[in-house]
Amino acid sequence: MLDLTVNRDSKPPLYRQIAEQIRTQISNGRLPANSRLPTVRGLARSLGVTRLTVQNAYAELQADGWIEATVGRGTFVSTAVQQMSLEPTVGQYLTPDSAINDMLAINQVIGVRSMAMAHADPTLFPLDAFWSHMDQLRPEANQLLSYGPIQGDTPLRVEICKMLREDGIPSSPDDILITTGAMQSISLALTAVAQPGDGILVEQPTFLAVLNILKAQGLRPLHVEMLPDGPDLAQLEQRIIEQRPRCYYTVANYHNPTGYCLSPAKRQAILQLAQRYNFLIIEDDIYGKLGFDGPPPRSFKQQDPDDRVLYVSSFSKMLMPGLRVGYLLMPPAWRSQLLTLRRATDLCGTSLIQRALAHFLQDGGLKKHLRRVIPIYRERRDALLNSLSRWMPTAVRWSEPQGGFSCWVTLPRRLPPGLLYQQALENGFAFTPGEAYMLDDDGRDYLRLCFGNLSAEGIEAGVKLLSALIQQQLTSSTPAGDWLPYV
Amino acid sequence: MLDLTVNRDSKPPLYRQIAEQIRTQISNGRLPANSRLPTVRGLARSLGVTRLTVQNAYAELQADGWIEATVGRGTFVSTAVQQMSLEPTVGQYLTPDSAINDMLAINQVIGVRSMAMAHADPTLFPLDAFWSHMDQLRPEANQLLSYGPIQGDTPLRVEICKMLREDGIPSSPDDILITTGAMQSISLALTAVAQPGDGILVEQPTFLAVLNILKAQGLRPLHVEMLPDGPDLAQLEQRIIEQRPRCYYTVANYHNPTGYCLSPAKRQAILQLAQRYNFLIIEDDIYGKLGFDGPPPRSFKQQDPDDRVLYVSSFSKMLMPGLRVGYLLMPPAWRSQLLTLRRATDLCGTSLIQRALAHFLQDGGLKKHLRRVIPIYRERRDALLNSLSRWMPTAVRWSEPQGGFSCWVTLPRRLPPGLLYQQALENGFAFTPGEAYMLDDDGRDYLRLCFGNLSAEGIEAGVKLLSALIQQQLTSSTPAGDWLPYV
Repeated sequence: MLDLTVNRDSKPPLYRQIAEQIRTQISNGRLPANSRLPTVRGLARSLGVTRLTVQNAYAELQADGWIEATVGRGTFVSTAVQQMSLEPTVGQYLTPDSAINDMLAINQVIGVRSMAMAHADPTLFPLDAFWSHMDQLRPEANQLLSYGPIQGDTPLRVEICKMLREDGIPSSPDDILITTGAMQSISLALTAVAQPGDGILVEQPTFLAVLNILKAQGLRPLHVEMLPDGPDLAQLEQRIIEQRPRCYYTVANYHNPTGYCLSPAKRQAILQLAQRYNFLIIEDDIYGKLGFDGPPPRSFKQQDPDDRVLYVSSFSKMLMPGLRVGYLLMPPAWRSQLLTLRRATDLCGTSLIQRALAHFLQDGGLKKHLRRVIPIYRERRDALLNSLSRWMPTAVRWSEPQGGFSCWVTLPRRLPPGLLYQQALENGFAFTPGEAYMLDDDGRDYLRLCFGNLSAEGIEAGVKLLSALIQQQLTSSTPAGDWLPYV
Repeated sequence: MLDLTVNRDSKPPLYRQIAEQIRTQISNGRLPANSRLPTVRGLARSLGVTRLTVQNAYAELQADGWIEATVGRGTFVSTAVQQMSLEPTVGQYLTPDSAINDMLAINQVIGVRSMAMAHADPTLFPLDAFWSHMDQLRPEANQLLSYGPIQGDTPLRVEICKMLREDGIPSSPDDILITTGAMQSISLALTAVAQPGDGILVEQPTFLAVLNILKAQGLRPLHVEMLPDGPDLAQLEQRIIEQRPRCYYTVANYHNPTGYCLSPAKRQAILQLAQRYNFLIIEDDIYGKLGFDGPPPRSFKQQDPDDRVLYVSSFSKMLMPGLRVGYLLMPPAWRSQLLTLRRATDLCGTSLIQRALAHFLQDGGLKKHLRRVIPIYRERRDALLNSLSRWMPTAVRWSEPQGGFSCWVTLPRRLPPGLLYQQALENGFAFTPGEAYMLDDDGRDYLRLCFGNLSAEGIEAGVKLLSALIQQQLTSSTPAGDWLPYV
């Protein structure tokens, strides 16, 4: 029989409390696929709630694919749950590449509560508004399904320029290159400005896909430790003097994976170093519009007198990643080279989606959306920080993100690689192991928790589970298997 | 006053004859932007046709953006026509890169009759069917606008496998990588299999974007002359022995830009050479489903015992390029490397579009579409060949394509580079100069005419204009400007 409780004083409505607990029990395997659930009438009676409450809970679970109802037979845990065998590639040989692979695979599995991806909540996407713009494009669709301009749809570039202008970054539509996500902007920018063997400065930890790009392009990552207010400047200058980097890649706002924000002073200092030692800056501002307490500090691009900043962003985090719309503000010196590279890569993206997005922006849809979702994400951040305070062992530390989706958790010592991750997955919970974001480590262990895509209850349940696993690992004197702790 | 004639014995309906003649006069500048057109009543009377006929002609021109009607003011040539200044980059320094740029720019200009792009006719796209599949996805759209799988939408990969199986190519969905057009497949395939400096065999002439990709990746193009039944085998083997290529890139079916088709014997011979000298084959089959007289010969991939063929195709030519859906059949040995590269490039495409396409395919939409459009494209090919026979000077030669969109025209001697192109553009007609597709030349001049995207009347009008310009050039004893003919 189901073990459920409801709390009438608690904030989430009763039906959500019920749905959430059932989801948890499916996730952690207590309710395996094909388990029969109680009848609506039976569960309502045993919990002392109305039948409508249970019906609502079941309807939500059914809509999300967790359970299936067949008239006359009853309600069962869906066979789609855990249908996909999870074969994580992590462990001793975790690479950024395998970590991305795992994250995307886990994203496709119903039945895992995932804090692994820095993903906007898809259920918050303003689908009605977006879809109505798509519908209005139908008369032009034949044209919009032809080859579009290399640089991307012109009306969308106009709208992006307006956004940039509001952020204090003047530009013209001719300066904008629309790409398949920010990923392609970063990849093209690095191809354009760097030669194989060139040193590229990255924060440690950093956005793991960039480590992937550097490896694929034969570039040499140079890491500088990320502190809560930005990179360690002394270490940075030393690296610069020793290694003469071509470029510095930074996520200055609500940094992935730490959630940190570079202070205005550090931004200034880095720009001065860039001028003194003549390197370029790739500024990845993908989280910049997701500040919980007002806008972030002035961007690098806002204070870039000699056009050495290649500014990158995308709609993946502020709207939805499946739009696959990122953009690069091309400094004049690199424009022609970047366009040539785009023509030698994949020519152009889907104008239909780009034009619908342009009309959505024109209509004020993004601003309206951000006004709605930022309080929700702020609440989830709060739920995460509260849960961490409440459940985590005392030696564990974490960042306090002022925006974005990422929180960085630091354990006091190294655990056997992959073990915690594996145990969490077996219990239906996913995070990303910190080693994926690191070029080397200092004997501590890290993990990234993303809070954008789960309800406050889901976050608390996940943190509680994870805390118990960490507690267990930290207190076990002999590590599992062949592993020896490094400290 | 408009100078129009109608021919009641001619095949196109009267309204199309009228629309076509007005379009021509707008294209060649005889009717500049903002010119007032006659009233419906007036034109109907002067031509001796019904008012409905003129109304239909005007409606078509208006729908295509050529003219604008304002109640009470009248009907005018659209200001959008020729609004964009055409600054072609061709001339002495024509490169594949600049040619692609020109083609895409010209594609955006209303008012040019373009045979420059190997483009499906957008007006033939089965928008109703496709759109209804999009509409049905609305309940799942939040999910489909999230990150999708690296390899592309799974249901679409299942459908692609079915298509491949019907073509005698067995595969599993795990072998398919969905990319942004065939372009990205080719680009990733070359990055995966070749190192900078490696020699890559290409037909001469060849798909110009591939020349671009080779250049961007630091690969060494090795050309072999394309004859009507495929490459010159003696020259091919000599190149292979001298240069030890890594790979052979071929468009075996309805080759771009020539329209040629490799004979079964030459396919066999090339496969044997590949085995003997151990090089790979990238088979670009983007036109393979567009045969006018039944299917093409057996593909390389169908006769590939040791998995050395990387098979590439896309929906760009058989449906619409703006879908940006291409695919690569990954040999097992290259699968992991290709997926890693995709993760280091742009992660994934738009699942929403991919899923709609999957449902369209599942529904038989593609087969139905091809049954409808192939007779139309065949008719346009016939119109082109008939017009060439009728209007071209006798010394001019051309290919007789059995499928695809490209026809290759050979002039008896070299003309001043860019001059013909420039003159044609000034008269509102675009083609692509052959030099964009060539690595070297033999003193003759070439051009590509694409017949997929114009009506039979448009094709005839274009060929007639071009023929006159060529005649004029060939008979002028002193070439224009500083140019001396090479022969």
